Amino acid sequence: MGNPLKRLAVLGSTGSIGQQTLDIVRSFPDRFQIIALAAGGNRDLLERQIAEFRPRFASARGEQPLSVARLAPEEMAAHPDVDLVVIAISGNAGLLPTLAAVKAGKPVALANKESLVTAGEIITTEAARSGAALLPVDSEHSAIWQCLAGEKAAPTRLILTASGGPFRGYSRQQLAGVTAAQALKHPSWQMGPKVTIDSATLMNKGLEVIEAHWLFKLPFERIDVLVHPQSYIHSMVEFADGAIKAQIGFPDMRLPIQYALSYPERLPNERLPRLDLGRIKQMTFDTPDFATFRCPALAIEAGRKGGTYPAVLSAADEAAVELFLAGRIGFNDIARLVEGELDRHVPVTHPFFVNIAATTESTRERVLRAAGDRTWAR
Amino acid sequence: MGNPLKRLAVLGSTGSIGQQTLDIVRSFPDRFQIIALAAGGNRDLLERQIAEFRPRFASARGEQPLSVARLAPEEMAAHPDVDLVVIAISGNAGLLPTLAAVKAGKPVALANKESLVTAGEIITTEAARSGAALLPVDSEHSAIWQCLAGEKAAPTRLILTASGGPFRGYSRQQLAGVTAAQALKHPSWQMGPKVTIDSATLMNKGLEVIEAHWLFKLPFERIDVLVHPQSYIHSMVEFADGAIKAQIGFPDMRLPIQYALSYPERLPNERLPRLDLGRIKQMTFDTPDFATFRCPALAIEAGRKGGTYPAVLSAADEAAVELFLAGRIGFNDIARLVEGELDRHVPVTHPFFVNIAATTESTRERVLRAAGDRTWAR
Repeated sequence: MGNPLKRLAVLGSTGSIGQQTLDIVRSFPDRFQIIALAAGGNRDLLERQIAEFRPRFASARGEQPLSVARLAPEEMAAHPDVDLVVIAISGNAGLLPTLAAVKAGKPVALANKESLVTAGEIITTEAARSGAALLPVDSEHSAIWQCLAGEKAAPTRLILTASGGPFRGYSRQQLAGVTAAQALKHPSWQMGPKVTIDSATLMNKGLEVIEAHWLFKLPFERIDVLVHPQSYIHSMVEFADGAIKAQIGFPDMRLPIQYALSYPERLPNERLPRLDLGRIKQMTFDTPDFATFRCPALAIEAGRKGGTYPAVLSAADEAAVELFLAGRIGFNDIARLVEGELDRHVPVTHPFFVNIAATTESTRERVLRAAGDRTWAR
Repeated sequence: MGNPLKRLAVLGSTGSIGQQTLDIVRSFPDRFQIIALAAGGNRDLLERQIAEFRPRFASARGEQPLSVARLAPEEMAAHPDVDLVVIAISGNAGLLPTLAAVKAGKPVALANKESLVTAGEIITTEAARSGAALLPVDSEHSAIWQCLAGEKAAPTRLILTASGGPFRGYSRQQLAGVTAAQALKHPSWQMGPKVTIDSATLMNKGLEVIEAHWLFKLPFERIDVLVHPQSYIHSMVEFADGAIKAQIGFPDMRLPIQYALSYPERLPNERLPRLDLGRIKQMTFDTPDFATFRCPALAIEAGRKGGTYPAVLSAADEAAVELFLAGRIGFNDIARLVEGELDRHVPVTHPFFVNIAATTESTRERVLRAAGDRTWAR
């Protein structure tokens, strides 16, 4: 039976997903071994993680020496001793390491949204060429992936569930007045600030639709969004005979993380919460309000158009969310800024990575600069 | 690609499941061919089915000639030209044909509950020996089977959903007064009278727990019942990592029938209804009230004890339901009669088929006789 030890590189180890990944590794010391850890600025936590997990390599922002050998994230992702790469870096910074891992043919547990959103065509093409498996870590895509297990034919529809965020039912006028502090209170998930704001604008769901398009190779008109405030059903799949399969559970990111690490097995883990529907009593559903929350429609449209449009969407959103978190723009300005950037964009149809990087950088600069203009004063 | 034509024997073709099976066959004339049809007393309908589907063999109650060659159901089930046997016969009459099909190594689409309930050990042992696949047609077991597709390890829990029947929330006193006409109005499924009454007493769910035990080889303490009045979630499975998978859909028996016929494929069928949860808005759940509805606990206890106990349960219930439908006993008397029979039973531990048949017959006789006694007057 001898269970093979998987040797992991965890990129973004000090963030929310990174820490939860290490929590899973901690539960299965005979199944997972940490070879490399890459962090951003949180050097203290990284050093504690190094002390506990004893990786061979580490990286952090800046030049200061670390207690183990330094290695750049892209090199970790392609290192011959690494069996699986966890991309837990948030934002556009996750793109290059993802590409490096995929090019090296490594299975990638992918928590970074931006990679597939902005470079879905490049990454899936490279993955098909190298044989690298893309293992989704998002709860929605993990649910879909779990529901597709054992099915012979492509599904007819993917149904991504959405909590609807903290402002579900608000009018556009009400949304205009919401603050960053209010937006950071997500009803069902504990996440980083960028993802939490994207959840409040529903941009998150738009990005997930684009990711689902690339991961599961379904056209956009076959990917639906369903509001389900309790977040117990993590997503669903409909098949040619009308059967729907759903993956259900208590909202806890450790489940999709563990599934991506342990796939094709499931590991018994009593520390993961169990959902008792007899206690829950009720689940509710609704159609999403894409007229009031304009980000998902912008995202889906950018996804349909393809090329460098999704890079504009992603970069404009990332910059706009920073401005919103800093209190420099209002909640509705996020969609307005993103839409303005998409409208003015002159696209590259089948972009290379450099086109995406250039688009990302120029879009970001323009959005941040625009914040100085009076147009964006509240 | 050439799709193989499956040649079917449909036993119980004029009943509810039988007619719906033929409806599926009608939709896929290049995938399914009817070789044999077996009916009970509804000779007119059988002759119309013979005219439409042109089987080589048929059978019906009585001695009158049919428009095609007569063949006994047990011989149809084992006929070399039959690729798949649909057992849509309700009640204990389904047992012998099921056993014949399984012994002949035929895949069996099994809608008959009693076979696995009363002879689960014999049938699963014979199926293991002959390699016959048992393909569940019950919506609950089909849902579980669909959720298990592609999973490497055994699940940790099966969660059978139950509508709760038309008398959910009633007290024992209220139940004492309900009539057969009231009990025949099932809130979400259209079914035959025996199954509908079993749904009202929740005996149906107890029988399904026993079936699930044999089909999926899980101990009884790992099989739960969850009340879900809308019957959209057809059942669920929990795995070692806490993930739950559910199969969801509009309540329509044609889906599990079609899945059993087409497995391991799913056939595109626009005639099967699609469920739109955005319109449905809500699903509710509750723990079942096994104190008021006593049949499921009696069934599970009989299942645990094994041997000839489930045969007593099944035969006593079948007879008691007949008495209730005839207005000769009250609703609560069904459980009381079943319990009395279980209490007095001297079991055979690993019964042969003859022991089960003898137990079934003697139990049935005793229950019907008891109805003449004053004890059971209302």
